[in-house]
This record gives sequence, structure tokens and C-alpha cells, in this order.
Amino acid sequence: MASHGFWSLRPDDSSDNTRAWCQAAAQKFTGGIGSKLCALLNVGESDKSAESPAKEAQSGVETCGCNQPCNCSRTNQGFSDLYSTDLLPATNGDMKTMTFLQEVVDILLSYILESFDRSTKVIDFHYPNELLQTNNWELSDEPETLDEILLSCRATLKYAIKTAHPRYFNQLSTGLDMVGLAADWLTSTANTNMFTYEVAPVFVLLEYVTLRKMREIIGWPEGRGDGIFSPGGSISNMYAMLLARFKMFPEVKEKGMSSIPRLAAFTSEHSHFSIKKGAAALGIGTESVICIKVDERGKMIPSDLERRLVEAKQKGLVPFFVSATAGTTVYGAFDPLIAIADICKKHGVWMHVDGAWGGSLLMSRKHRWKLNGVERADSVTWNPHKMMSVPLQCSALLVKEEGLMANCNQMHACYLFQQDKQYDLSYDTGDKALQCGRHVDIFKLWLMWRPAGPQHTNVCFWYLPPGIRYLEDKEEKMRRLHKVAPVIKARMMEYGTTMVSYQPQGDKVNFFRMVISNPAATVEDIDFLIEEIERLGQDL
Amino acid sequence: MASHGFWSLRPDDSSDNTRAWCQAAAQKFTGGIGSKLCALLNVGESDKSAESPAKEAQSGVETCGCNQPCNCSRTNQGFSDLYSTDLLPATNGDMKTMTFLQEVVDILLSYILESFDRSTKVIDFHYPNELLQTNNWELSDEPETLDEILLSCRATLKYAIKTAHPRYFNQLSTGLDMVGLAADWLTSTANTNMFTYEVAPVFVLLEYVTLRKMREIIGWPEGRGDGIFSPGGSISNMYAMLLARFKMFPEVKEKGMSSIPRLAAFTSEHSHFSIKKGAAALGIGTESVICIKVDERGKMIPSDLERRLVEAKQKGLVPFFVSATAGTTVYGAFDPLIAIADICKKHGVWMHVDGAWGGSLLMSRKHRWKLNGVERADSVTWNPHKMMSVPLQCSALLVKEEGLMANCNQMHACYLFQQDKQYDLSYDTGDKALQCGRHVDIFKLWLMWRPAGPQHTNVCFWYLPPGIRYLEDKEEKMRRLHKVAPVIKARMMEYGTTMVSYQPQGDKVNFFRMVISNPAATVEDIDFLIEEIERLGQDL
Repeated sequence: MASHGFWSLRPDDSSDNTRAWCQAAAQKFTGGIGSKLCALLNVGESDKSAESPAKEAQSGVETCGCNQPCNCSRTNQGFSDLYSTDLLPATNGDMKTMTFLQEVVDILLSYILESFDRSTKVIDFHYPNELLQTNNWELSDEPETLDEILLSCRATLKYAIKTAHPRYFNQLSTGLDMVGLAADWLTSTANTNMFTYEVAPVFVLLEYVTLRKMREIIGWPEGRGDGIFSPGGSISNMYAMLLARFKMFPEVKEKGMSSIPRLAAFTSEHSHFSIKKGAAALGIGTESVICIKVDERGKMIPSDLERRLVEAKQKGLVPFFVSATAGTTVYGAFDPLIAIADICKKHGVWMHVDGAWGGSLLMSRKHRWKLNGVERADSVTWNPHKMMSVPLQCSALLVKEEGLMANCNQMHACYLFQQDKQYDLSYDTGDKALQCGRHVDIFKLWLMWRPAGPQHTNVCFWYLPPGIRYLEDKEEKMRRLHKVAPVIKARMMEYGTTMVSYQPQGDKVNFFRMVISNPAATVEDIDFLIEEIERLGQDL
Repeated sequence: MASHGFWSLRPDDSSDNTRAWCQAAAQKFTGGIGSKLCALLNVGESDKSAESPAKEAQSGVETCGCNQPCNCSRTNQGFSDLYSTDLLPATNGDMKTMTFLQEVVDILLSYILESFDRSTKVIDFHYPNELLQTNNWELSDEPETLDEILLSCRATLKYAIKTAHPRYFNQLSTGLDMVGLAADWLTSTANTNMFTYEVAPVFVLLEYVTLRKMREIIGWPEGRGDGIFSPGGSISNMYAMLLARFKMFPEVKEKGMSSIPRLAAFTSEHSHFSIKKGAAALGIGTESVICIKVDERGKMIPSDLERRLVEAKQKGLVPFFVSATAGTTVYGAFDPLIAIADICKKHGVWMHVDGAWGGSLLMSRKHRWKLNGVERADSVTWNPHKMMSVPLQCSALLVKEEGLMANCNQMHACYLFQQDKQYDLSYDTGDKALQCGRHVDIFKLWLMWRPAGPQHTNVCFWYLPPGIRYLEDKEEKMRRLHKVAPVIKARMMEYGTTMVSYQPQGDKVNFFRMVISNPAATVEDIDFLIEEIERLGQDL
């Protein structure tokens, strides 16, 4: 620590240093957060400081736990007779706005500290009807004071899931990256839209630079190609299907599906449900999505793909799209991309790789072999908001062929994409999107970009409680085991100690799916989860 | 001011008071922003204080303009040897994280103050190639220090459009609401996903409460029905088209478009291009979107709608969808909803109202008559991120029939929507969406909700420079007039003084479209725009 002069203020266990640090912290931060830091870092030194920060936040009055002459209790003054209309752009609104926003930031910084603190709950769980009664969540017919608005912020966070908590394992997206968070706050402040260079010059350029880099990493020559950041992996996959259809039958854009033959799409039985959802939306129909068998580890079996492709052709269908999965949702399996690419090439079918979950392994020297063959794909979905911990939402679709997205989607709306602007119009990317306005999702990823690669794993397992461990009747055993995970999960949420997901798959009854993508989790946190499952499931 | 004790610190013109305020501000805020406030509020008192804050920010060293013993120059200390890996969840990362985030907030607060300051530019415009050279925007292969990350934040904001600026009129979404911004910062910090109650209990309930209120305001009995917040008006309109098709031909979900007759959709020739974009994506085809004539004010002509409906039927097409526009993009026209509802009823066709722009007038006692008949629609798009100034993105689709969205879109993914959870599963709304993960867009709107209604207007006009004002050759006049708006706009952006949009429409050459939706704009700002157009276009 000594080399970081500024940081040497952090307390060691000597109380003199602690006092000095506390005073410095209180000066450095306004009201609430300086005191919070004191309280958190002095846990155990006094009874008062051990109080749950959540309780303090609830009371609306913040007190400093360190018993030093800190500069606290300054918050919330003056907000009870102010309204949003007193803030900027109101005349003389500068100081009020700054103080209000700083107060909000203090609330958020406290929440962040709590989220990373293992002694706090992951969730303060309430059933929907209970939660509706904890607070007045109904929309008010009267204007609210800024004080009431701040109270609403506190209440909202009190009942939120702490997705940054080291023991939150429930989804593929876990954790909270501080640089990503800073970038997202900046994005909100810039409050603009991705449709044209004119209204988002920097963000449009950063998207351009980042998409090119991602295509280079995929392995496309000089990073050439196209792409877009879309609102999530499902929409990215839908874009891919849309492009594949347009590539084979460009007349579909004007004339619709009734002008073209019946299509067939192929994906593994463990693939994400968005492939079927996309087929339903695009007018292709879910029955035209043919599910290919997987091996015991969840990987698509290439020979089954080829067999079903040929079969579809014999039935008069036109195979147009194969979606291989790089990182399935449940098992985390990687389909064999090279074998699939060979089949796609042979049959002239668009190859898509749904790497929403596993695509980020392309950044890892150690693990990228799992995606060998990805460079032969026509399109790739890659969600940095999953394994790379970019805040939600951040999903990219990368496309090998240049110009196809624009041809497929553009409508030439002249009020937005004027052709007589003064700058290079190729930067007006809005018309290649399905959306008109498009949220700025790029800045988080760009600011967080790091050469070191992510690692990940899905581990699926059953917990067999003692009561059923030695049951001989296999059917009865499976019937009872199927109910174990839901009960443990429900208890886990009521205690709020940790969260992990469960599901059945195929002929397998409910099992836990442990995902390790939360950068805050240590080996001890994973041990904690296992012990907690045992504790909560002992009696089942 | 006297009644707000806390606020009386703001300086009047007496320099003693100014000094006192300056000291108080510097204590209240950390490093940068206290000094910024001093500098901004003392503009004119010294030469130094008149310096552009943007210039200061660029240098990386912040100095206080007020020449008082302020607590400044504390920023950026210690960040040059720290990396993102030193922040939480790193051991001992608390204080570093808080200081880093506070520094980011200081940068954002400065940007906000600048944005509302009429003496700053709306945009510091650079052509794409120039902008690429102003900074190193390329993705680094080496980890960056926190200092470099903060510099990137400053550079990004330096070249951003100030969408909150009182003289920014370029889009339908303008302005920056401070409560909405606070809510968006909180949303980023909560970093969760809308698919299940389990991972977003509060946000799911707030969406439920808010959608019901919006349906009540539309006029549907007891606010019954369904809906979703989607990533923008184009996707909301696409949802509506998808639902209309499914309602008439539910078999389309499984069997696709080849199992049903050829469809026809109807919308006015001034409607948003997303209707055609949706038709292309859904496999209906753009040729199946029949454009209905508008009157001289841009409103759909009902008799033409009926004529084209009948004609389509005679050609063997099945009319399934009429999209009326409440607030067209360019003219701001409202289609006659009652007459359109009568025609839809008579022909058994789904009636959609695209109120992306004008829907917010439902909140206005004075203007809601423009949407009379909206309660007869089957679905309504309503974007609070436009006229209600909610930060981007916030778009709702409201649907009259309960259960239809789920039937249309659900795929029953068992790993996410487990049926054996402990709570009421009707709150797991994810499966009715086209998306899987869905960004939290509700909290901004909920926190900002105000009973007072928005007003708006689109005013379209030409500027005739003296040189062409008296030209007799009408064709020559139009030819030259068409080039006037693009040139003025380009000059406007280079000066960076204001921004307004232009476009041609039908047989009309390029005209300006002035939209009044920026809450920061005053009458003087509109006068400024007019004078600026005159100044920049005199010589044309």
C-alpha cells in the first residue's frame, strides 16, 4: 500500500490511523458516504458501527458509525420543500441540482459498498403481494418532493437483488464492474441515440472501432465485415436469421414469405429458445426449426445435422440457416464448429454461431480453441454483458459480409438519413438496424476493454438429501429429487444468503446450474454455496 | 430564496457572499465540482473565470476560477498507478472505488452544468476523420490506468452533443431531466434484467403498476390489458404487427407465413418507416404495406383508407392491421382516430395507434382531445422518452387484450421460467417478450411520473435567403431552396451554436422541422435559432 501515497489513509488496525482516515474520508466525500465508509471499515469496533447499513438508509437520517468529528448528517437538508421543477433547467437550479445528484450518488455508493460486503443479504425477499405493501409504489397524482424521490430510491435499492454480491450466481450475467458502471453513468448523462453520427459522433466511432476489433478477434481478414450492438442476444440471433433469409431470397423484403419456398432452420436441442422465438416472429414458424440431437455433454452431433438437412430437402424445404451454439445456456457446451462449417459449406447454408454466452472466450488465449472454426461463420452473436461483465445491456451481432445489413433493413427515411449532409454518410448506421432510436451500449464495453481474457464454467449438479440418497425405487427417487432444488432455492431466497439457478433438461430432473462468471466470487464463496445447499436441504 | 435556508448560499452580486458561497461549495463537493461551481457562478468577475470549462477539463488539471482558498486540485491524485483491477471486488478496494466513482461523478456534474449553460457550444463538431485523430480511440492492448480511463471520459464528453442544451432542437428526444438521470444512474447500479420477478422484484412491480396506469389513461376499463417496455418505438410497432397477425391467424406461430393467406397492412404515407421495417422483418413484405393518402396537414384521409381496404380484399389480400399515427415525425399530425376506428371495426381489422411521439399528450388535459378514439385501438405505442423527456430508452407498447402477448411469444424455456417457483408466476414477464434479457427502462419513468402534462409542437418552415426570395423561375427557386437547409445546418454544426433538423417531404423541398420538446428552451432560445438561421443563410 505504501507506494500509493493517497491510499495510505486507509485504516490499519491502529485506532489513531483509523481516526485520521475517518476524518480524511469525511472531508473527501459529502455527508452520507464518508460516514458510510467509516461505519463499514470500522465494523466490530463499536456496537453502533455493526448496524446494518440497510437499516440506516431506511431511516433517512444517516449517522456516522465512527464516533469521530465527521462532517456527516448533512444529507437530505432542504429537499423536503423542493420539487423536480426546482432543478435544472430551472433558473438558479445549479446548486440544487448538484446537491440533489450528489445525494443520489451517495445512496448509490452506499449500495455498492453493501453489495460487495459478504455480511449483507443477496436479497431481502418478499412475495409480490407483500412487496406491494412495503412502500407506496403506486404512481402519485400529486408532485413529489425531492425528499420523497430520494426515499423512493432508497426503498427501491433496499428490495433490489444485489447482482454484484459475491454470492449471487443466479444468471449468466453477474457481478458489477466499476469501470463499466462509470461508463454507464456517463452514457445516461450524454443521453443520446445511435442513429446518426450527427447526434452521437463519439459513440458511433467507438462502435465502429470496437466492432472491427471484435471481427478481427473472430478471425475475419482485417476485421472486415459489418455488425451492430442490439438489445440482447435474442435480437442479435433474430438479426442473423433475418440476414440469412435475405441473403438467399432478397425478394422477401418487398414480397414477403409467400413469394419464397418453405424454409428450414437447424439448431441443437440444447440451443437458446430465441432461435424458435425468432422463427415465430419472422413468419418462418417454429415447426421449421429442426432440433438436432446433442451428445451426452450437450454438443450438437454433426452427423445428425447432416441427416436432418438432407431429410428436409427431400421434403421440399429449403435449408437456409444453421445456428451452432458456443456455450449453451445450461451445460455450457460448445458445438463442434469446424464440422458444422463443413456441412454448411457443402449444403450452401448460412452458418451462425450463437456465442451470447461463450463468445467472450475468444478473448482468452487458454480457452479460445473451444470456438475453433468460428471464423468460418457468416454471423456471430457475442454478448459482452455476460462473461465479460459489461453492465446490461451489451450484445453484438457480427456479420462477415459488408453491406448486407443495410440492404436487408434500410428504408431510406429521408427525415433522418438526409443524403445532403456535410459528412461521410457511412457513419449514419441507423438505417441498417431494426430499431430507429438505439440505446448507446458501446461506451461501457469500450471503456472496460481489457486484453486479459475471461474464464468461465457451468457446473450442473444434483444435491441428494440424506432422506432420498439410498432410495432403491429409482422412479420414486427421481420424483422426489425433482422437488429438491425448487425447495432449496425458495429457502435460499427467503434467507437471502445466496442465489443459484436450477432447471430440468431433457430426461434429467431439476438440477442446480452453477455459473462462475461473477468476478467477486472466491473459492470460499463457492464453498459457501455448497454448504448452504446442504444446510437448507438436509431435511428433504 | 430566503425560504430555502440551505440554498441561500448561492451568491448574489455581493463579493462577500460570493466568497462565503464559494467556500461552502468547495467543502460540500469534492475537488473538481466545487471549483467548477465557483468558476461558473463567478463568470465575468475575473478573466480567468471566463475560461471555457471544457478547456479546463481537457487539461486534466482542474483549477478553481474564483481565486478563493477553495479545496481544489485534489482530483486525479493517485489514479496514475491504479488499474481497474484495484477497484472492487479487489481486497481493500472500497476507498479506491469510492474515490474513483466520485471523480467520475465530478466530471459528469461539470458536464451537466456546461450543458445547460447557453454560453457553451451545443457541439464541438469534427468530421469523422478529424475526430478519429483528436484522441486515441483505438482499443488498447495494454491495461489502462484509472487516470487514462478518466481522461477518456473527459474526451468523450468534450466531443459529445449536449442534448440537454437549451438550443438543441435536433430530434424528438431533447433535454435532460435530472430526476430521470438520477433514476438511470440507479438503474445502472442495480444492473439487473427484467425477465423474472426473482431477479428484478421491484422493477417488475413498477412496470406492472405503470403499464396499468398508462392503460387507464388510454381509457381501457380499469386499466386492464397487457403491455411491455421495449427497446424503442420501432420494436413496439413491430410487436403490434406481430400480435395483430397472431390474433387473426394463431397458426402462424408454428407454421409460418406459408400457412396463411397474403396479408395487407395500412398506414399513412406520413407514418414512421418502422411500419415498413416491421413488415419486412416479419416476412409480410413491404409491398403489403399500403400507404394511405394524407390531407394538407398530414392527417390520414379515412375515405382513402376504406377505399384501399376494399381494393385489397378484391385482390385477394387479407387486411389485418391498420396503424394510425398520433403525432407524425415531421408535421406532428394526428390521424383522425374515431373515423379510423369505425373503419377497422367494420372490416374486422386490428387498430394500432403509433403514438411514439404524440402519445404523451394523453397526459395533458388541454391536448388529449387530439387522441380522441385511442381507447378503441387494440394496441398503442407510447414513448415517454420523447415528449415526456424520460432519458433514452423508454418505449411502451400497450395491448387491450390480456394474455395475447404471452400466447404469441412464449416458448416456455424451462431453465428460466421454472413452473415450480415459490411465487406467483404471472410476474415472470420475460416469456411474453421477443427478447430474453430485457433492459430496465421502467424506473426512470416511474420516478419522474408527474401529473402535469407535456405540451409540444412541430413547426416546419423554409428560410428564403434574400438571393432567392424574389426569383420568378419557380423551378430554379425550388432547386436552390432545396440546398439552403443543408448548408445552414452544416454551418450551424461547425459553429456549434444550435441544432435543428431538416428534410424534404413528398413534393416539398428541404425545410426545417422545429420541435419544441426541450424543457430547457425558452422563447429567447427559439428567437436565437431563427436569428442564427438568418445569420448563417444570408449569403445563400
